[in-house]
Amino acid sequence: MDAAAFHSITGVFRCEVHWSDCDPAGIIFYPTYFRWFDSATWAFFGAAGFPIKTMIETGMVMPLVGADCEFVAPAEPGDHCEVRSRILRWGTKSFVITHEVVRADGTLLARGSERRVWGRHLAGPGSPMKGQLITEELKARFRSA
Amino acid sequence: MDAAAFHSITGVFRCEVHWSDCDPAGIIFYPTYFRWFDSATWAFFGAAGFPIKTMIETGMVMPLVGADCEFVAPAEPGDHCEVRSRILRWGTKSFVITHEVVRADGTLLARGSERRVWGRHLAGPGSPMKGQLITEELKARFRSA
Amino acid sequence: MDAAAFHSITGVFRCEVHWSDCDPAGIIFYPTYFRWFDSATWAFFGAAGFPIKTMIETGMVMPLVGADCEFVAPAEPGDHCEVRSRILRWGTKSFVITHEVVRADGTLLARGSERRVWGRHLAGPGSPMKGQLITEELKARFRSA
Amino acid sequence: MDAAAFHSITGVFRCEVHWSDCDPAGIIFYPTYFRWFDSATWAFFGAAGFPIKTMIETGMVMPLVGADCEFVAPAEPGDHCEVRSRILRWGTKSFVITHEVVRADGTLLARGSERRVWGRHLAGPGSPMKGQLITEELKARFRSA
Repeated sequence: MDAAAFHSITGVFRCEVHWSDCDPAGIIFYPTYFRWFDSATWAFFGAAGFPIKTMIETGMVMPLVGADCEFVAPAEPGDHCEVRSRILRWGTKSFVITHEVVRADGTLLARGSERRVWGRHLAGPGSPMKGQLITEELKARFRSA
Repeated sequence: MDAAAFHSITGVFRCEVHWSDCDPAGIIFYPTYFRWFDSATWAFFGAAGFPIKTMIETGMVMPLVGADCEFVAPAEPGDHCEVRSRILRWGTKSFVITHEVVRADGTLLARGSERRVWGRHLAGPGSPMKGQLITEELKARFRSA
Repeated sequence: MDAAAFHSITGVFRCEVHWSDCDPAGIIFYPTYFRWFDSATWAFFGAAGFPIKTMIETGMVMPLVGADCEFVAPAEPGDHCEVRSRILRWGTKSFVITHEVVRADGTLLARGSERRVWGRHLAGPGSPMKGQLITEELKARFRSA
Repeated sequence: MDAAAFHSITGVFRCEVHWSDCDPAGIIFYPTYFRWFDSATWAFFGAAGFPIKTMIETGMVMPLVGADCEFVAPAEPGDHCEVRSRILRWGTKSFVITHEVVRADGTLLARGSERRVWGRHLAGPGSPMKGQLITEELKARFRSA
């Protein structure tokens, strides 16, 4: 399936900018966005049939190859947001997921992406990881009707 | 008002144990609880009429004097929890707030407390802070009927 | 060995207050101290003959039973500190470790303690943990001459 | 000055992978790299004559426009690393700084960049920020002989 033809469903992860997420400039400390991206990815896969507890029990992991983010507007304590996630592209054993962080008033705060491997610990948690083939069945779970 | 006679309302802060909150042992990294305590305190005061955005605009702060926590049962990724907060005691310019972290199945995961000053930045954010008198009006906002 | 007769060596963990460790009040966000306590404990055990990599390879863990901290003076970005750690008490399968955070100018910033179990994963990382007997040999590594 | 002709000095920020920096897969949780990038940037500017305490006192800030990172090799607890930072490009009021994270054995773990504004709070910490002109004097502090 080529990328152009693929239409991903959208995952939604709700979050709030907490006091602890901000730095002395009074706005969000930027790695917070990447922490949210990570949580949003787990939540999106959970909603698509891969709950985090099952993933962990079966040794499945999604290690990162790369990540990037543009910071469009500053976020402040008390802002309610949602991270909207979509699969941009499936590789053989990896995928690209994009995230948009949108404040409750509709303002886009940040957008970015993660490149991840679909992998498995070879011998239980903490052991070396190896990429796994991404099956058509897996992809189908993220495809919009 | 003596502590024995004071009955605080309970604040409820919902949270989830994320992948990012856990360490190589596979369970929650314990400072996460204190981060939740902090967010729960802000949320509780917000619900009682002191929203975090107003607090920040007016230079109000709640710096810590001490904090403690007992870890009762391990929390794992995907656990849904709530932090239940109560004011244990009001001082002249400080207060003690207690927190219980309870998992969705009713299991108590952790319980602890924070001792905080009710303070104000003397000259805007980042400037020195000074304790403020805790008024009867403030206390009344946390009193159960 | 009773607690009174035990004289622990002191571990020293150097750290700096980073921009990322501080919150919109311009001072350290308090869970940072607990993060340092954790790193200081690992460093102390490493110096005493239990390097973190060996601990992990052999499934050894030190899960928390409780933790507390008093915040004595505010810490700001750029402050250079050290955490001075000592074993306060050995139990059969647990121990209490105390930490003092001292700024380069000698000011005490915070002091606290952690109560931890000396444990082991029963079946590799991520599996259930069980307390292990604390041997005389282990204690001897933390005893001052 | 064009980018090609500019040769930046290299900043070095030493760090260690702590237990708290890792996740249930047993390796570094990736936003840790961005936290290090941030600390490395502050350290680099500090070494070049802009200590963080002075920056804060004078209301100087370096808000982010974007950030990215490639994860080349996994980092584990106990790994000693350094972040090597260079100014890639100066804009009128912004700059690009690149970072390489290298383990003590010489292995490249990650490399990335931050795009930041050279800015100032208009009215003290927490107030709105505005980009400032990057002077030749500022650039000269990062130029190799």
